[in-house]
Amino acid sequence: MKRKDFKVPENFNLSEIATAYATDLPKSEIKLQLKKYRKKIAEIQDKMYADNRYSVLISFQGMDTAGKDSMIREVFKGFNARGVVVESFKTPSYKELQHDFMWRHYVKLPEKGKFTIFNRTQYENVLVTRVHPEYLLNERNPFIDINNLTDDFWNERMNKMVEFEEFWFNNGTIILKFFLHLSKTEQKNRLLKRLEEPKHQWKFSPGDLKERDFWDNYQFCYEQVLKKSNHKRAPWYIVPSDDKDISRLIVAKIIYKTLKKITEIDYPKPEPEILEKISEYKTALSSDK
Amino acid sequence: MKRKDFKVPENFNLSEIATAYATDLPKSEIKLQLKKYRKKIAEIQDKMYADNRYSVLISFQGMDTAGKDSMIREVFKGFNARGVVVESFKTPSYKELQHDFMWRHYVKLPEKGKFTIFNRTQYENVLVTRVHPEYLLNERNPFIDINNLTDDFWNERMNKMVEFEEFWFNNGTIILKFFLHLSKTEQKNRLLKRLEEPKHQWKFSPGDLKERDFWDNYQFCYEQVLKKSNHKRAPWYIVPSDDKDISRLIVAKIIYKTLKKITEIDYPKPEPEILEKISEYKTALSSDK
Repeated sequence: MKRKDFKVPENFNLSEIATAYATDLPKSEIKLQLKKYRKKIAEIQDKMYADNRYSVLISFQGMDTAGKDSMIREVFKGFNARGVVVESFKTPSYKELQHDFMWRHYVKLPEKGKFTIFNRTQYENVLVTRVHPEYLLNERNPFIDINNLTDDFWNERMNKMVEFEEFWFNNGTIILKFFLHLSKTEQKNRLLKRLEEPKHQWKFSPGDLKERDFWDNYQFCYEQVLKKSNHKRAPWYIVPSDDKDISRLIVAKIIYKTLKKITEIDYPKPEPEILEKISEYKTALSSDK
Repeated sequence: MKRKDFKVPENFNLSEIATAYATDLPKSEIKLQLKKYRKKIAEIQDKMYADNRYSVLISFQGMDTAGKDSMIREVFKGFNARGVVVESFKTPSYKELQHDFMWRHYVKLPEKGKFTIFNRTQYENVLVTRVHPEYLLNERNPFIDINNLTDDFWNERMNKMVEFEEFWFNNGTIILKFFLHLSKTEQKNRLLKRLEEPKHQWKFSPGDLKERDFWDNYQFCYEQVLKKSNHKRAPWYIVPSDDKDISRLIVAKIIYKTLKKITEIDYPKPEPEILEKISEYKTALSSDK
C-alpha cells in the first residue's frame, strides 16, 4: 500500500478505477495499523501547534454514504481537540449566499498550528451545482446566465479553486483532498442499512434516493474535478471506499506520509538565554514556598 | 473634471503627478456638487439593496493625514446606514495573523446589495510591509526568507491581489480603488495642525513622524502598486488630495459615474400576479378594522 497508488492517474475513466482494495491483511491488523498512524499524525499535529507556522486543510468528498463522517471520526480519534476543527458544509445559508461561493470556505480556513477538516468542500460548487444547475440561481450572480452554461464555465471555476489553493499553500497551508470512491451497489447496501437500523434512520432522507438517480451525472462531475483540479500543491487522492476499514487506513497513511515529508518540524527550541538558565529557574521554583 | 483624468497613466513617475487640482469652482459650488453626487450614489445604493445581486467595494489608501477618514465621513454622509459598512484595517491582530494575509480582508468583503468601504486595504501588505520587511516575520510564513526578498516576491503578491479582485468582480462585486495623493509639504501642515488643535491631538502619534522619514520609500511602493495592480476589473484612481473639498468631489463623481455605467439597475418589479392584484390588496387592507 503506497501513497502513489491512490494518486490521480494521467488518463482515466472513473468507472474503471476500483472501489474495492484487495488486501491479505486481516481486519484486526488493519485496525491496529490505523491506530499506529493515527498516533503518529497526532504527534505531528502537536509539534505543528508548538511551531505555529504551518496549517493543514484536509478535504473529503464523496457520494452519499461514502463514509465521510465515520472517516473523520476514526482518523482523528484521540487527537487533542485544541488542534482540530471539523467544518461540515451543508446547503448554504442566506447569509453565506450574500457572498461569492468561496467566501464561506475562506472564512473557515485553518489557523496556523491547526488542522481543519472540510466535510464536503468548495468543490460542491462544481459537483451538486453542476448536476443541478438551477442551484446557481441562489448565487444571484448578475453575470451568470444559467441557460448558456458551457464546459468553460465549470472549468474556469475549477481553475480559480486551484489558484486559491496555490495561494493558501504558499502561505503555509498543507492541503490534501480525498475522494471516497464508492460503488453504486455498495451505496444501495448502505442506504438499506440506514433504513433498517433505528440508530441510523435519522441519517436517511428521501432526497438520498432522488440524488441516487443522478449517479452517472455525479460520476462525470467527479471525474472532471479529479482531472482539472489535481495539482502538486493540493493533490486529490482516490480512495477505494467499499470497505470502510481499509479506506480509513489508506487515508491515515497518506496524511502521515505527506506531513512527514513536507514538515520536518520539531518543537521550537527555547532561546539560548533561557536554555542556559533552565537549572537556575528550576532551583528558584523548587525553593519557592 | 472627467473620470479618465484620474486614471493611472501608461508610464509615469508618481512624483510628477500633481497633488493639487486647479479649478475655478468656488468652495460653495464644490460643496453643493458633492451633495448632489452623494445623493445620486445613495439612490443607486438603495436600488442595489433591493436588487440584491451586486455589491460594491471601495478602497482608500494614502499617506498619513491624506484625508481617508474625513473622505469616508463626507462622501457617505446621509446614506442609509443599513447599506454601508466601513472597515478600518489597523495593525493585524494575533487572531488575524494566524491566517494568510488576505484572510482578514476576505472575511470583511461586502454582502450583496451593500457597500463596504476599506479604510486601508490588503495593499498594506505591499506598502507598509515593503517599507518595513521585518513586519513579514509576523506572518510566520515558513516559505519566506526575509533576507532574500526580490522584486518578484512583491510583484507576485500584487498579481495574486489582482486575481482575487477579478474573482470578486466576476461574482458581482464592483471594485474601486482610490489613492489619495498628498504632497510632503501638505502632510507637514496637517501634522502641525494635529499637534496644535486639542480636538485633533488624539490622532497624533510619534510614529507619524517616524513614518514620514520613509516618505520616498513609500512613494516608490505606491508607484509600484499603481503600476502593477491597476486593471479593468478593479481600477486605481489617483486623487489629488492637497485640498480636501475637491478630492471628495472627485471621488464622489468617480463612484457615481462607475456605478451608473455598470449597473443599469432599478427596483425589482413585483411578480405579474402580485401587480395584477395590487388594487385588490389595497381594498382588502382598507376595509380591515
